[in-house]
Amino acid sequence: MNYQKILEEIEEEIEPFLCEGKVADYIPALAKVDADQFAMSITLFDGRTFSIGESDQKFSIQSISKVFTFTKALKIFSSKLYTRVGKEPSGNPFNSLVQLEYENGIPRNPFINAGAIVTTDTLLAHYKEKAETFDRILSFIRDISGSEGITYDKEVWHSELEHGFRNLALANMMKSFDNLECDVQEVVETYFKHCSITMSTKELSRAMLFLANHGVDPITNMKYVSPHQAKRVNAVMLTCGHYDASGDFAFHVGLPGKSGVGGGIVAIVPRLLSISVFSPRLNSWGNSLAGTKALELFTNKSGLSIF
Amino acid sequence: MNYQKILEEIEEEIEPFLCEGKVADYIPALAKVDADQFAMSITLFDGRTFSIGESDQKFSIQSISKVFTFTKALKIFSSKLYTRVGKEPSGNPFNSLVQLEYENGIPRNPFINAGAIVTTDTLLAHYKEKAETFDRILSFIRDISGSEGITYDKEVWHSELEHGFRNLALANMMKSFDNLECDVQEVVETYFKHCSITMSTKELSRAMLFLANHGVDPITNMKYVSPHQAKRVNAVMLTCGHYDASGDFAFHVGLPGKSGVGGGIVAIVPRLLSISVFSPRLNSWGNSLAGTKALELFTNKSGLSIF
Amino acid sequence: MNYQKILEEIEEEIEPFLCEGKVADYIPALAKVDADQFAMSITLFDGRTFSIGESDQKFSIQSISKVFTFTKALKIFSSKLYTRVGKEPSGNPFNSLVQLEYENGIPRNPFINAGAIVTTDTLLAHYKEKAETFDRILSFIRDISGSEGITYDKEVWHSELEHGFRNLALANMMKSFDNLECDVQEVVETYFKHCSITMSTKELSRAMLFLANHGVDPITNMKYVSPHQAKRVNAVMLTCGHYDASGDFAFHVGLPGKSGVGGGIVAIVPRLLSISVFSPRLNSWGNSLAGTKALELFTNKSGLSIF
Amino acid sequence: MNYQKILEEIEEEIEPFLCEGKVADYIPALAKVDADQFAMSITLFDGRTFSIGESDQKFSIQSISKVFTFTKALKIFSSKLYTRVGKEPSGNPFNSLVQLEYENGIPRNPFINAGAIVTTDTLLAHYKEKAETFDRILSFIRDISGSEGITYDKEVWHSELEHGFRNLALANMMKSFDNLECDVQEVVETYFKHCSITMSTKELSRAMLFLANHGVDPITNMKYVSPHQAKRVNAVMLTCGHYDASGDFAFHVGLPGKSGVGGGIVAIVPRLLSISVFSPRLNSWGNSLAGTKALELFTNKSGLSIF
Repeated sequence: MNYQKILEEIEEEIEPFLCEGKVADYIPALAKVDADQFAMSITLFDGRTFSIGESDQKFSIQSISKVFTFTKALKIFSSKLYTRVGKEPSGNPFNSLVQLEYENGIPRNPFINAGAIVTTDTLLAHYKEKAETFDRILSFIRDISGSEGITYDKEVWHSELEHGFRNLALANMMKSFDNLECDVQEVVETYFKHCSITMSTKELSRAMLFLANHGVDPITNMKYVSPHQAKRVNAVMLTCGHYDASGDFAFHVGLPGKSGVGGGIVAIVPRLLSISVFSPRLNSWGNSLAGTKALELFTNKSGLSIF
Repeated sequence: MNYQKILEEIEEEIEPFLCEGKVADYIPALAKVDADQFAMSITLFDGRTFSIGESDQKFSIQSISKVFTFTKALKIFSSKLYTRVGKEPSGNPFNSLVQLEYENGIPRNPFINAGAIVTTDTLLAHYKEKAETFDRILSFIRDISGSEGITYDKEVWHSELEHGFRNLALANMMKSFDNLECDVQEVVETYFKHCSITMSTKELSRAMLFLANHGVDPITNMKYVSPHQAKRVNAVMLTCGHYDASGDFAFHVGLPGKSGVGGGIVAIVPRLLSISVFSPRLNSWGNSLAGTKALELFTNKSGLSIF
Repeated sequence: MNYQKILEEIEEEIEPFLCEGKVADYIPALAKVDADQFAMSITLFDGRTFSIGESDQKFSIQSISKVFTFTKALKIFSSKLYTRVGKEPSGNPFNSLVQLEYENGIPRNPFINAGAIVTTDTLLAHYKEKAETFDRILSFIRDISGSEGITYDKEVWHSELEHGFRNLALANMMKSFDNLECDVQEVVETYFKHCSITMSTKELSRAMLFLANHGVDPITNMKYVSPHQAKRVNAVMLTCGHYDASGDFAFHVGLPGKSGVGGGIVAIVPRLLSISVFSPRLNSWGNSLAGTKALELFTNKSGLSIF
Repeated sequence: MNYQKILEEIEEEIEPFLCEGKVADYIPALAKVDADQFAMSITLFDGRTFSIGESDQKFSIQSISKVFTFTKALKIFSSKLYTRVGKEPSGNPFNSLVQLEYENGIPRNPFINAGAIVTTDTLLAHYKEKAETFDRILSFIRDISGSEGITYDKEVWHSELEHGFRNLALANMMKSFDNLECDVQEVVETYFKHCSITMSTKELSRAMLFLANHGVDPITNMKYVSPHQAKRVNAVMLTCGHYDASGDFAFHVGLPGKSGVGGGIVAIVPRLLSISVFSPRLNSWGNSLAGTKALELFTNKSGLSIF
């Protein structure tokens, strides 16, 4: 398949969508991003990469980091992790607090904020120290993306910390149910820190390749997780990866994927490739508007949906 | 692939699971089914069928009928249907009433009871008469399964009607939000009637084949829905098809599918085949225990998961 | 105290409030009432009655009937009634459905709709027949008010029945929890029938006198309930009598009372008198706007608040 | 009335109840209290005090402190306070989080934890400093009780702080809705500090006297709040003073009052006296079991219920 040609067609057709939607503005540090950016990258198993737009431009990966912490926690704790966080879709955001209360502080999946906070807590309890925990998460991301320069954005991190009351509420509630082992503040700081990691679309699509290949990086042959664990991460991405539009993404795009309010989305085509897109304007569910559209164009043109 | 051999291996390995779980007992008519039955059928695009167990044994399809009414309503109303029922996962059952209230009587998807009731209402409003509406649903099922003898179980239907207070509560609440056009009693009677249709695994796997082939029955070349509509049904089956274990089913089986409390499950492998299983004992989420396991064995042995 | 003078002062001061608020319009039969009416009546233990305005004008008592059915059920079932309905405030209406679900179909008090429906069901189960049940409720109201001509408004009743889907939802949900003994339709019909009873302010203030006097009508010396039961009814009126403005009524008026969306309110001054007001325009909580204000003026002028 | 005699009768009759119920054990510092204690005090407008039991024994006033902070905030902010906290009953505790979410972070009343935390925040915002705020609250309590020695229990305070995750969750959620002006940690620390104040029944009944007398201390003639404000505090005590048993307390006791999990309860008889009881074993709603019973005996014997 001529991936470069497909990408270039998308670049042209996506034009009218680039001015729709609204950049995340719940923190000032995100609000000031250049709104009209667009980039997209594909990485194949043989290492070839195809890109359009500003594919080296770093952006805040936000909730996409939840895929990495979930993968890492799954590797360490295996299915024991599921005593702390579920793996089922969660319904609308309004329900999430009721649900936490009703289900005794166990979040429904690792991709809602409460679930990602618990996942971060398991890593923090494992590595004991805040600094080491974040370093391990960062090293893992650097390893899978083969990019040593990846780091986090201090300004975004501080901005998140200053406005993170809702996440602190969730964390404290879980703590009250004994579903948080470590200090609430340390957990939330670490959580926000990995959300504020910045990556380019090139790095992101490279990083997800092992999930398209049963847990083994097809380029380096490094095994990161078992085939079962990779399948689990993909299944959770498909059913829970896009906030309250996961069903819609499954239909329109039809690939396991994860989005972040920074405007990035990553997805995989099992046994074939991984793909990443960046465009900061969001639709009403908090997913990149042009990014979602671009991925839909990709599966339509390539015929590579899982359905 | 030697499908018959795979099925026979499954038949052997499933043995220890057949005595686990519990038959649905919320209505007497379902509770008295022979608990230890097992059957499984595969239908290929060329019409070849492979089966094990009592694959001609009829059983109550229950919620599997929701796939058929959703498909039919989608064909008639196309995307206008989504003003009446959503397409996103719904979280745990507890939330469903809160959610209905919070989202003004619009159920989250057509596979929760509220959503299937609304779907039935759209058909009833379209065909005007209760009798005709059910006949049209039944004809559709007979057409896609190529089996004229399919009908419903009167005893199960009456039993459902006698114990259907929760569904009447949902229907009345939606009526109070103006999201039910027809008479509440007529809608609920029609809904319960299609839930009490009985089919065998052979019939069920045959019936779903068009959903594996972009909406066109590969044997008769009849086009039932558009490729987009088929994709939508599959996406909803994957994210919402198994009550509060949809995420788990996506992981363990990895195929779009739908289960019913009668003990049946159907699933499709896109572009290849459809598959159906029956075993009445349920796991704690209300899905056939041995049925789920058998489908997991199938995707493991065949490598035919979508992930 | 010169009650007539107090009432006449109120009549003058209430003038500017009579055009504020909005008549209940959820059913056409209520919406067409003359909006600017006002009446108020006081009945003393010695039988003297003081009135202003159209105090013989009948109006729909609506939720005020809940006081009468609760009293009657309490008399028959005594504290056994509390296994079916609670006696605590319920918070906002939004919570009521969640609450029913969470507390297994037991409504929090007899003055929310779900609670009044259950109360009606206990009476229906006791008297066996729909017609007799309503007759007994009506006779009771005629007895305590000493007014044989009291009856219900057929048009309002039919109008309620046609729009009663939310109450049918509540009734069916309680039925699904086995907290309704009788046929759902019969219960709801009887419930709506007693809500559509019409009374004047003179009749209403007369009717409540026994609750101001430990359960014994001070004029006829008839004992309707025990002192304990009268106290219970009064306590529930104080904490739950005015929808989501019960706390506000307790503060502004400071008397046990009950309002209805027909525009009526009744209240008692323990050991002294009962008082009733009618004005159809409602405030945002569904209580008579001028009626609430008039009662506030009364307790301010008379010093007869319980606080 | 011979109050001493009534108290002595109560002392005798309460005996069998003293071993029922369970001391609060959510924090170790409360759990270790001597469980079988009992004390009761009455203060009249002329200053005469009647007591039984260990009426000089100090105990943790806990939620009773909410009456004092609400009174103080009402005095400072008058009705502006109600933009931050409501005055209606809240239903069961389960609802409280849903409610906060649904009503945009505005707690329903000042006696649920969320409401008391907001009240504390208004005081902290007014006095600017944590230390001064607490000093002002403490001085106010010392003033109204005429007891300079009143202070807080450091061990209880620290214990609360160590286990206060649910309150931190509430505080953070309100902060996320912009309904908390000050630093979350400072608010919660101050809140827990006033909850850990210790008083005797003698001091408590003395302290509440101004609320029985329209806001003016009848002994010192000091005016603490306006008659309207006193009425409001009393109305909120009556409808919301006893967690999820406020309706039951209104019925059994029939006086405006407030309880705390430390085992104390205070109540007032408007225009006559104030009364306080202490007994650490709690009933299932978290109110002193023997204390509630003793107050019920008091109103039965004295006839001094408001109903």
